[in-house]
Amino acid sequence: MRRVYFDNAATTPLIPEVREAMLPYLNEIYGNPLSLNTWGDTAREAVDEAREQVANLIGANSEEIIFTGSGSESNNLAVKGLSLAKKDKGKHIVISEIEHFSVMNSAKTMEKLGFELSYVPVDKHGVIDPEDVRRAITPDTVLVSIMQANGEVGTIEPIKEIATITREKEVLFHTDAIATVGNIPVDVNELGVDALSLAGNQFYGPKGIGALWLKRGVRIMPLIDGGIQEGGRRAGTENVPAIVGIGKAAELAKIEIPSRMKNILKIRDRLIKELPGKIDHIVVTGHPDNRTPQNASFCVEFIEGESMLMLLDSKGIGVTSGSACTSRALKASHVLLAMGLPHEIAQGSLLISPGIYSTDEDVDYLLEVMPPIVERLRQMSPLYSKYTKSKKGGE
Amino acid sequence: MRRVYFDNAATTPLIPEVREAMLPYLNEIYGNPLSLNTWGDTAREAVDEAREQVANLIGANSEEIIFTGSGSESNNLAVKGLSLAKKDKGKHIVISEIEHFSVMNSAKTMEKLGFELSYVPVDKHGVIDPEDVRRAITPDTVLVSIMQANGEVGTIEPIKEIATITREKEVLFHTDAIATVGNIPVDVNELGVDALSLAGNQFYGPKGIGALWLKRGVRIMPLIDGGIQEGGRRAGTENVPAIVGIGKAAELAKIEIPSRMKNILKIRDRLIKELPGKIDHIVVTGHPDNRTPQNASFCVEFIEGESMLMLLDSKGIGVTSGSACTSRALKASHVLLAMGLPHEIAQGSLLISPGIYSTDEDVDYLLEVMPPIVERLRQMSPLYSKYTKSKKGGE
Repeated sequence: MRRVYFDNAATTPLIPEVREAMLPYLNEIYGNPLSLNTWGDTAREAVDEAREQVANLIGANSEEIIFTGSGSESNNLAVKGLSLAKKDKGKHIVISEIEHFSVMNSAKTMEKLGFELSYVPVDKHGVIDPEDVRRAITPDTVLVSIMQANGEVGTIEPIKEIATITREKEVLFHTDAIATVGNIPVDVNELGVDALSLAGNQFYGPKGIGALWLKRGVRIMPLIDGGIQEGGRRAGTENVPAIVGIGKAAELAKIEIPSRMKNILKIRDRLIKELPGKIDHIVVTGHPDNRTPQNASFCVEFIEGESMLMLLDSKGIGVTSGSACTSRALKASHVLLAMGLPHEIAQGSLLISPGIYSTDEDVDYLLEVMPPIVERLRQMSPLYSKYTKSKKGGE
Repeated sequence: MRRVYFDNAATTPLIPEVREAMLPYLNEIYGNPLSLNTWGDTAREAVDEAREQVANLIGANSEEIIFTGSGSESNNLAVKGLSLAKKDKGKHIVISEIEHFSVMNSAKTMEKLGFELSYVPVDKHGVIDPEDVRRAITPDTVLVSIMQANGEVGTIEPIKEIATITREKEVLFHTDAIATVGNIPVDVNELGVDALSLAGNQFYGPKGIGALWLKRGVRIMPLIDGGIQEGGRRAGTENVPAIVGIGKAAELAKIEIPSRMKNILKIRDRLIKELPGKIDHIVVTGHPDNRTPQNASFCVEFIEGESMLMLLDSKGIGVTSGSACTSRALKASHVLLAMGLPHEIAQGSLLISPGIYSTDEDVDYLLEVMPPIVERLRQMSPLYSKYTKSKKGGE
């Protein structure tokens, strides 16, 4: 059976070159970067090089990179650490309604610790209006956290425009760029933000490694206290193999983003254009054009999303229904609901996420396999038979 | 030149079998454990198996294991998460004076957030008196956090006895068992604690992975909010290769601890016995017998510790001066100071940490190389010349 991995938004495979770069650090180079001996020196040099590579990918200085254990940790560190460091100035945080749970639940934790929290809405395409951010900022606001692109629907947000407002209002601005860094060109100076999260496993680097870029001079309270690693901003023995891996992945992404984008966009656009031609009652979610290359997201009406995933999987196609972090919780996506989609439609959500190894044949196969699956599921759906009856009745 | 790695307390090398177990997860098995497809299922099964293996090493149930990104993260999660979950009951935390910085600084962060903090002292061998813990507990105490063994001096603490007191007082008890798990037999039921931290890179597993064992029914506030990973107690895409690695390392440790201990103890005891015969003015730190097998720690008087490390390293011997997490901060160890050692002696601290790959020849080499290094450094030391003069004067 053909196997088609269209779940790159959940996690990407490792590029062989990245794996090769990591292997010595799972083998003969095993020192603790903080140890004052040759073993430590060798490990530390590798960490320093990776820090340069990651910084270089986003136009930053290497000392501004804080390595973490995941994109979620980066988001937690940013939301909690920046607001706690500013708590004497004010206790109000602004986020959007479509943030990843690692931002949203971090902000809710701050709410429990005495902060106030405001949500900025999105339009039907998931786009935030910068003027809504301006209106949400109060004299008590210390932090705005808005994602650069949504992982579930792909919509890219007007970060530059929002940053103009936060700078004017003298409020810190963090952006969750986990869905963008390594997938499209991202430059922290161009964006004008103060902090930015990224994750290795979103651009063909390893799992278990993320980073927070923190603009020079911005103070943060650590999430993980302890030793002096990462300039005292994130304790714990450095995960050297994974750090080397994210460094290599960053180096490759920097070079290859233009060509990768070209290929992946072609596949994404085929999916977005051709799938609605093959299946009725399917809507593309997210912004029609201004979206990440690796995201083709839909809502398929009159079906139960989980069954669709399982049947596609039985045909060798791996997709998800949205954020992998919560897919097993089987709740309707807060992102789709915020975009105004009704519950019954949101539950048929489908995220097809092509990557650098995706081919036109993968798309052909999906286009062949998926319509009969949807048809079969609809035959079993009471909602669908109600709909078809009402339609006939109306004719 | 011979290369002798005596820095296993800072981090251990990977066992080849552990590396082999990890490799498929850096290659063809790359799914996100939360994805509802075959890729996700395969990854999730591996995580489940590793959870069993880690649980089995410490006599726990697998659902009580929370994977984290490091031992430091485990300690932060325990100290912050347990005290925050109990904050309506009370706001007092008890730790010892010789905790690792990841426990101590977490407790200090809680102090900033309105908690009170008490320190229990240690005797000259670094041993805590359980009765001091009893005296430190107040009606406001919610958490006691005391390490099972100290990483710098190796002393093993009377955890069982302390647990009897915390149970009687109905106070949560967390133990940092990072220096013990995988090195000596550890059983959570025997210890009687409520939470226990461990780290992969302390027992020949990978870096970037730790775990917190949390007794069934004990509530905790997550440190990293977000998705539903780890039962909602630690968000972030699971670091599958590292989780598989710590699982395999746990499985091997469970079987091999008795034979490993036998070999390492022999080497440790040679170091502790023979080094003072070769070098004057050297004191063994920590408990003479009741200490971890991988720890032979000393204070070498009348020398500057950092220079000693560098000269030993130039001869191919890798050691540290204590906790790797702070060695580059070049401060006298809080552990040695708490044990009553004066500053000038504490700064000559030396941690020789043998491991499963250490040999008798390694010890022979150290015993040959180290005395002339110490002699050379003392020739340059004003303190030593003052001492020798005063001694001559006194004769």
